[in-house]
Amino acid sequence: MKLRQIGELKLLQEVRKRFSSTDSSIMVGIGDDAAVIAPQEKILVTTDMMNEGIHFDLSFTSPFHLGFKLVSVNVSDIFAMGGKPKYLFLNIAMKKDADEQIFWKMYEGISGAMDIYGLNLAGGDLCAAENDMVLSATIIGTGDKIVTRRGASVGDKIYVTGTVGGSACGLEILKRLTAGARDSVKSLGSEVWSKEILTSQPLNLSTSQVIDWNIAEPLIKRHLMPVARDSSNFVNYATSMIDISDGLFLDLCRVCDESNVGARVYLDRIPVSEETTKAAEIMGLDPLHLATSGGEDYELLFTAPPTSPIPSLLKDIPPLYPPLSKGGTGGVKITCIGEIIEKDRVVIDKTGRESALKTEGYQHFGTSG
Amino acid sequence: MKLRQIGELKLLQEVRKRFSSTDSSIMVGIGDDAAVIAPQEKILVTTDMMNEGIHFDLSFTSPFHLGFKLVSVNVSDIFAMGGKPKYLFLNIAMKKDADEQIFWKMYEGISGAMDIYGLNLAGGDLCAAENDMVLSATIIGTGDKIVTRRGASVGDKIYVTGTVGGSACGLEILKRLTAGARDSVKSLGSEVWSKEILTSQPLNLSTSQVIDWNIAEPLIKRHLMPVARDSSNFVNYATSMIDISDGLFLDLCRVCDESNVGARVYLDRIPVSEETTKAAEIMGLDPLHLATSGGEDYELLFTAPPTSPIPSLLKDIPPLYPPLSKGGTGGVKITCIGEIIEKDRVVIDKTGRESALKTEGYQHFGTSG
Repeated sequence: MKLRQIGELKLLQEVRKRFSSTDSSIMVGIGDDAAVIAPQEKILVTTDMMNEGIHFDLSFTSPFHLGFKLVSVNVSDIFAMGGKPKYLFLNIAMKKDADEQIFWKMYEGISGAMDIYGLNLAGGDLCAAENDMVLSATIIGTGDKIVTRRGASVGDKIYVTGTVGGSACGLEILKRLTAGARDSVKSLGSEVWSKEILTSQPLNLSTSQVIDWNIAEPLIKRHLMPVARDSSNFVNYATSMIDISDGLFLDLCRVCDESNVGARVYLDRIPVSEETTKAAEIMGLDPLHLATSGGEDYELLFTAPPTSPIPSLLKDIPPLYPPLSKGGTGGVKITCIGEIIEKDRVVIDKTGRESALKTEGYQHFGTSG
Repeated sequence: MKLRQIGELKLLQEVRKRFSSTDSSIMVGIGDDAAVIAPQEKILVTTDMMNEGIHFDLSFTSPFHLGFKLVSVNVSDIFAMGGKPKYLFLNIAMKKDADEQIFWKMYEGISGAMDIYGLNLAGGDLCAAENDMVLSATIIGTGDKIVTRRGASVGDKIYVTGTVGGSACGLEILKRLTAGARDSVKSLGSEVWSKEILTSQPLNLSTSQVIDWNIAEPLIKRHLMPVARDSSNFVNYATSMIDISDGLFLDLCRVCDESNVGARVYLDRIPVSEETTKAAEIMGLDPLHLATSGGEDYELLFTAPPTSPIPSLLKDIPPLYPPLSKGGTGGVKITCIGEIIEKDRVVIDKTGRESALKTEGYQHFGTSG
């Protein structure tokens, strides 16, 4: 059925029914002029927009992935401040003759992500769009210990969760898929994590190379439906924190800018997954470049004093959903990649040679400079 | 300068500078992963989206008006719950080759509205759009006495602030303007309220009718840059409340639906401004139809027990900015238009005849039913 045949009111009623919340801190939820909440702690607020043709392309991404990613991206910002995500507000604009199924598949993705993070839908807006689909989410979280980008001090160690470059590598695979292979990835929809997929045939790239599903699948998932990292296990030791959305180096520079410090990064310590290394090799790409400049990993980059118990904590981080590495312990690895120094921003390569850290990351509207 | 020549980071730096806040309850504002606020009361949250081609048409509306309206529309939702608007979060998507001036004119409108309502910008997102401009705002307010749509009881009086139908009438004028007259309205930009405008020539309609500026100007303003009504003077007496965004009758029915009651409305009590009556006559439209079905007035519709002091309060409501009626006392009129009854929704015309109340208002995606 087309959205124009259903109408906004019926669609809203249905959304309200499906997302009814039992969280007692939501005093008024969907269906009034504003939501009313009564949290006990500090409030964290983040909002992000995803536009068709800019942030996503429905020939690469299914509506399910889109909904999932919209939530994860915003949750990641709350975790990056040391908060706990609580309330979700959604603004969705779609063309009138869009198919109802696109809407509900997207909501499945949203709903799946909400379950993982324990979020409640508390309000939003549903409206028509002339051309492109536009999604905007606001997430409100709560927190006690808040970690900003400003607290890094000289001598602090620089840590990163999980591995980086996987999302950019997944995007490169998607770009190279043959039309047929791309459709099969898209049609996976909510089944993208099912075991059956893992037994599928290898993916054919249009360059006539072949990537095994076991390698491609975690990377494609990483790009299409990233999972945000919960910072609650180490938030008490972090002096500054940011989520890696625009690239490891660019986001590290943001911490340096805000904290008014420099950084030294050891290139051979940057954690890159086996899958990224293998897939990059097949595609003729530099895995280290993907890891330092590729965006959308949604791992956390943080600093902590050298005396913090982070090193001893590393093996105790509990498994996150889904486990980052199928072969591993199910836990999320944290890696020390360098340290905060006074002013310069430098990298040390494996031969010990120092050079300037160069940023390269995504910026909207491009730049002339 | 085009946005692509400036780049997102420089634009964000400039926004951050221009909108620096001194509100001490904002612990972390623009420039981190999320904003952190520490309010003392209950939190109200509302979010709304405005899409080019759906909610606005840049051949009718200037970027200044657009920015102003985006803020007012969201503030209105907070007032409609009995809250006080506090923090603004903005998501703006624009084409890369949009002119920088469009952006800054819009920000002037946003900033002008923020000043009126005492808002602080606390965060947001700025990104590129493939086709249409998209604006999304989230406003967080605080409140103690919260008024929902659910509290109307049989016997309560139904009140409406100001006058209704003016926005719809202003839109009808805009639609009928000759191309030349329309451009002069658009080019008014932030000067739309200046005294000089009032001495301009009468507006020429393409139907070769003429509307005097003194009549047209408040109606056009009402549509292009509505001002939300502060409910703080009567919130303590209201049992239910909603802002009139989709039409008086449709929004009244929402209150009835949520409160599980009926309503009786006296048609001759519905407040219509002199300007609306005169302009509707010139254009051959029914002013009462504009008043009951026209949207976007952003007046407040509320109910209160018959014993409430609302009637005696009416003359004490302090002036709001800008005064609704140039000829009046500068205060906002509140009018009792009917009462809550058990089940039926009816109107009484001036001859005393009763008939069913018919709703007709805007719904996204249209309807087939």
